[in-house]
Amino acid sequence: MHPVIEWKDGTVVMLDQRLLPGEKKFIVHHGHLEVAASIKDMVIRGAPAIGIAAAMGIALGVAELENRPELSDPGFLENEFKAIARAITATRPTAVNLFWAAERMEKVFQRHKNSYPRLRQELIAVAMAMDEEDFEINRRIGRNGQKLLKTGNTILTHCNAGALATSGYGTALGVVRAAGEAGKKINVIAGETRPYLQGARLTVWELQEDGIPVTLITDSMAGHVMKMGMVQAVIVGADRIAANGDTANKIGTYSLAVLARHHAIPFYVAAPLSTIDPRTATGNDIPIEERDAAEMTNFRGTMTARPHTVVFNPAFDVTPATLITSIITEEKLLFPDFGPAIASLEGLRRK
Amino acid sequence: MHPVIEWKDGTVVMLDQRLLPGEKKFIVHHGHLEVAASIKDMVIRGAPAIGIAAAMGIALGVAELENRPELSDPGFLENEFKAIARAITATRPTAVNLFWAAERMEKVFQRHKNSYPRLRQELIAVAMAMDEEDFEINRRIGRNGQKLLKTGNTILTHCNAGALATSGYGTALGVVRAAGEAGKKINVIAGETRPYLQGARLTVWELQEDGIPVTLITDSMAGHVMKMGMVQAVIVGADRIAANGDTANKIGTYSLAVLARHHAIPFYVAAPLSTIDPRTATGNDIPIEERDAAEMTNFRGTMTARPHTVVFNPAFDVTPATLITSIITEEKLLFPDFGPAIASLEGLRRK
Repeated sequence: MHPVIEWKDGTVVMLDQRLLPGEKKFIVHHGHLEVAASIKDMVIRGAPAIGIAAAMGIALGVAELENRPELSDPGFLENEFKAIARAITATRPTAVNLFWAAERMEKVFQRHKNSYPRLRQELIAVAMAMDEEDFEINRRIGRNGQKLLKTGNTILTHCNAGALATSGYGTALGVVRAAGEAGKKINVIAGETRPYLQGARLTVWELQEDGIPVTLITDSMAGHVMKMGMVQAVIVGADRIAANGDTANKIGTYSLAVLARHHAIPFYVAAPLSTIDPRTATGNDIPIEERDAAEMTNFRGTMTARPHTVVFNPAFDVTPATLITSIITEEKLLFPDFGPAIASLEGLRRK
Repeated sequence: MHPVIEWKDGTVVMLDQRLLPGEKKFIVHHGHLEVAASIKDMVIRGAPAIGIAAAMGIALGVAELENRPELSDPGFLENEFKAIARAITATRPTAVNLFWAAERMEKVFQRHKNSYPRLRQELIAVAMAMDEEDFEINRRIGRNGQKLLKTGNTILTHCNAGALATSGYGTALGVVRAAGEAGKKINVIAGETRPYLQGARLTVWELQEDGIPVTLITDSMAGHVMKMGMVQAVIVGADRIAANGDTANKIGTYSLAVLARHHAIPFYVAAPLSTIDPRTATGNDIPIEERDAAEMTNFRGTMTARPHTVVFNPAFDVTPATLITSIITEEKLLFPDFGPAIASLEGLRRK
């Protein structure tokens, strides 16, 4: 796949996902505020990719301080670092990977804050390492998850939990890719994912690029295709998983989970440990971002409802753990009861 | 409300619903093939409105024969009438009102086929009467259905089963209007109804015109708003109701019915007797129209998925009777078991 995000010559380069599938354009970011704006405006999206963008954005922010005379003052650096991290984390409240990445960078900061050149170098190195790590984690999620699929299966997915949402392999779509690598033929049905159409614009595009069979439906068709026996599993990504397994993901995921349960179809969440937030007790504690009404009242300038229309536009919803069949992580498959299963994760205990 | 369809000076005038809410334009039809094209292209849509359009289209087709020398040959008129009716009914397979209207016109034909001038006059008169009848039927549906609602309730609706889908009052939205006339404050949540956005473009527009509070959501948010306790009832229209109560309606309706059941929210279907087809035994016998992929791969010329994308685009789905709380007709409210309830309808037995 095409690199979604890259650290290059002291800049952060991102594929502008807002323009897909019509146009493939890259944006070069020279400062952390530009990175923050791109996260907020969804140039880049998907919890793991946002985590990488956050790390690179913070590294970029610290690199921006290079010629400041106050650098010898440790208080200055600490204040600046906090402001940079705040600017990055203030962009999107739901995806926990953003905060997780900022915390990792904070640890690097505390270790190296006494030497600006070293700090700068380490932050860049860690941000780049997180990108590579994410790819490897995705591969492991894929290998664990593909065991759940049989050749000939059709999976239904929502939004884009693919290469474009990560360092380049995908979580939910990583499972599909790994099944393919294991010799299984898997078909995908992609819900278009209104209002932002990540399914139509991104998932369909990246699967077509990889030659994986994909059929596009509107989100409203999910129940119908399940009823017709066209779906053997639902696999989605996650923006935040609470300690009890409740999962925030793109709006529409909860409806799919209810529909899957009604049709006795397994419902899988594929996500790295960085998406699990043991400090969030349940789904009720996850803040849900609401986005601009304009996303729903027009499509690239063509009116779909009058501009003054009252709109409810939550970007995420919460699927209760009770509707989830398994959470697929890089460490292992988790099954109910998810509270103890999550508590038992080695990778989380080390965090 | 604005007239959706009108017989005027020997033409059929329709509001072009494809252009709403951006533009209010009327199309004047001079021949029945133009009417057929407008039904197929969704200039007019909604089962009751399609029924009226079919009747007017058939009347127009017969009026077109005015100057034909073969009119004295009764075989000629019979063949022409059949061809006209076929052209009209071949447009959209799911909405039964189309066939119901054609059958009513066929009866008029059989009664008056021996006098072309009388036939022509009667067909026009009956088509115009069906338009007026529909309005009165809608009012009665409204009066029966509003008893199910309490002041302060928020109802979720899908697609447009409103004034724009009928002669001008609405079935599902007629219930909301009637509740308002009975002094009850009702709020509406409108699912935008992809791919054709009848909810966003039409339902939101007509409720705003009438000053009825309406909030727009994407179809994928339905589960979330139910879970948040924001919905007290779901009310939808119908394109065909089978003898056992199984109901075909706009794609996405079935998902709403499953979601409503999961959240213990009543699910109501509001439809005239003309939508009930006793000759269709169950939902399995209802033909489901599939529409063009282009409806999903672009929005008014802006690409949403690449043009060669494989798409599944059924225009309707079937909600099994077991998920329906009540069917609201002009005669009475029907409750399970719907088979016997439908069989007991006076209005159907007279049909």
